[in-house]
Amino acid sequence: VIDLAELGFDAISAPDSSFHEASCRRLDSLTKPLGALGRLEALAAQVCAMQRTLEPAIIDPVAIVFAADHGVADRGVSAYPRAVTREMVKNFLAGGAAINVLARFDEMELWVVDAGVDGECAAHPRLIGVKIRAGTRDFTAEPAMTRAECRAALAAGRRIAAELSGPRGNALVLGEMGIGNTASSALLMHALTGQELALCVGRGTGLDDAGVARKQAVLAEAAARIAPPEDPFELLCEFGGYEIAMLTGAMLGAASRRQLILVDGFTVTAAAALAARADANMLGYCVFGHCSAENAHRELLQHLGVRPLLDLGMRLGEGSGAALALPLVRAALALFGQMATFEGAGVSQKIA
Amino acid sequence: VIDLAELGFDAISAPDSSFHEASCRRLDSLTKPLGALGRLEALAAQVCAMQRTLEPAIIDPVAIVFAADHGVADRGVSAYPRAVTREMVKNFLAGGAAINVLARFDEMELWVVDAGVDGECAAHPRLIGVKIRAGTRDFTAEPAMTRAECRAALAAGRRIAAELSGPRGNALVLGEMGIGNTASSALLMHALTGQELALCVGRGTGLDDAGVARKQAVLAEAAARIAPPEDPFELLCEFGGYEIAMLTGAMLGAASRRQLILVDGFTVTAAAALAARADANMLGYCVFGHCSAENAHRELLQHLGVRPLLDLGMRLGEGSGAALALPLVRAALALFGQMATFEGAGVSQKIA
Repeated sequence: VIDLAELGFDAISAPDSSFHEASCRRLDSLTKPLGALGRLEALAAQVCAMQRTLEPAIIDPVAIVFAADHGVADRGVSAYPRAVTREMVKNFLAGGAAINVLARFDEMELWVVDAGVDGECAAHPRLIGVKIRAGTRDFTAEPAMTRAECRAALAAGRRIAAELSGPRGNALVLGEMGIGNTASSALLMHALTGQELALCVGRGTGLDDAGVARKQAVLAEAAARIAPPEDPFELLCEFGGYEIAMLTGAMLGAASRRQLILVDGFTVTAAAALAARADANMLGYCVFGHCSAENAHRELLQHLGVRPLLDLGMRLGEGSGAALALPLVRAALALFGQMATFEGAGVSQKIA
Repeated sequence: VIDLAELGFDAISAPDSSFHEASCRRLDSLTKPLGALGRLEALAAQVCAMQRTLEPAIIDPVAIVFAADHGVADRGVSAYPRAVTREMVKNFLAGGAAINVLARFDEMELWVVDAGVDGECAAHPRLIGVKIRAGTRDFTAEPAMTRAECRAALAAGRRIAAELSGPRGNALVLGEMGIGNTASSALLMHALTGQELALCVGRGTGLDDAGVARKQAVLAEAAARIAPPEDPFELLCEFGGYEIAMLTGAMLGAASRRQLILVDGFTVTAAAALAARADANMLGYCVFGHCSAENAHRELLQHLGVRPLLDLGMRLGEGSGAALALPLVRAALALFGQMATFEGAGVSQKIA
């Protein structure tokens, strides 16, 4: 069994409900009908509660893309060849991918982590090389990773997120790249939610119907190999990916530091579900950026009892949906901090 | 009958489909699975088509809030007293309202137009005083405005939007303030869509169930006074508001100049529906920022065949939902312009 404390993780305390209540009182005093900012109000209150303040702010956010390959990719579960993981890492480092554009747009630093890419990634100032192995093992035949590898990945995720956040940073935008990783996420979801496999499997980067059927058959093989463990880390060992394990570690660590975690699409949400299974307090620090077009993401979000901010049919990964949602979080905090009160502005209140 | 050409309006040409097609080809060459940016791709293509370019950009956007009072407000159709229109204009000019915060957030100029506020609005560099009258007449008893007033409001809307856009500006964020104006919008929707009145009426700034019933009864009175005219300007005269007429004029003028129009909530969408009835080409220049929590907005958007970008339960008006969506439009254009191509980045294409 994996012991988080042994790996350097601190305990996660729940967001502070007294700041939540105080922030709601302030929201009700602002010059707008009660509740008229809709979900932006709940968002501002959530950030107040996690940061324990009535002056919430996003400071020095960093985007981190964890990249890794998957043994199961050799079984034809993706529309793109396995080489694309490494090629896209190169593209991230050259600045040409969607997440690069969005990170610049958000004025946010972007870091790329080689968690387990198959093949050499050339050194680069923005690349953090902590390759566990050149891709996981094929989980239809054997566990995807060993416990030692899982431990190493969890610890690396925690350490990297802590270091990249720096002394002042209080927000992470988390993304992933890994050909085949929606297959891994589908199995994790199946095990975590009990939802039948067919409803957990989607088109990933763009499989056609035959491809989806093949992916589902491959995943059924894996699910038949072993009864899915209850323990989230055992589950990671069986069906996970190195990027997913690092994401899980990054989230558990960030929540223990009371940082805001902007969650991206299906695979990052699968990591969030694992982290939440390990410690339910983690979820209070998550803001779910978007609902992706990947079949099953909506269902997984519902299972977690959370609502994403955006629903624009995106299915790109890389942290793109999370990065796109960051301006909404910043806007919610700006409204919270800068709007006038009824009293201050001399605006009449509601008629009895 | 009101003649747009006579009022100085130019014809609206449809967005250019050849630029739409060319932009879709470019989108398919970018380093992402086909269509993986979801609705951001359609958005970028729409802006290319309206701006007739493959280098789309939002330049010097301006937010304009049109404010006016409504005779029907004296019939108890709002949760807030009529004085709030004037008080909120003061709040806008003092910088304390939600739209002020969002305009600063978006680095966008904000202007406030007194289209027909009841009472004096003190002079201010950001206030444009073109008061038609101190609020419309009570449309349960007589037409809300005369044809001469409607003409003057349409022309003022066109002129103000053109002047505030300046020589380079190519985008408008449109908002409104007017106690009672969701009552006017509900009647306009009822007439434009044929949808039964009960489905067009909502809580506005926060009516309780009894208030909604009262509002609906008052509107039924108005609807019984006269069969709703087909002509959008006749309809404006019967049931409109001065701010709604100016919004309609602003939109028709902006579309003729090929500007992007970011539409806010229920009332601005009602104005868009009027403008679209006058010239169907107008809709191609509209981006619908959000779906508000005001009952009927979703239905009205569906009637227009359009999908809003955000759905966050906001119901504030002022242009707040449109302003919140502006970063999404900017991000879509940044992705379109800055992402690398498969060829340029040396990324492998999809497996056959």
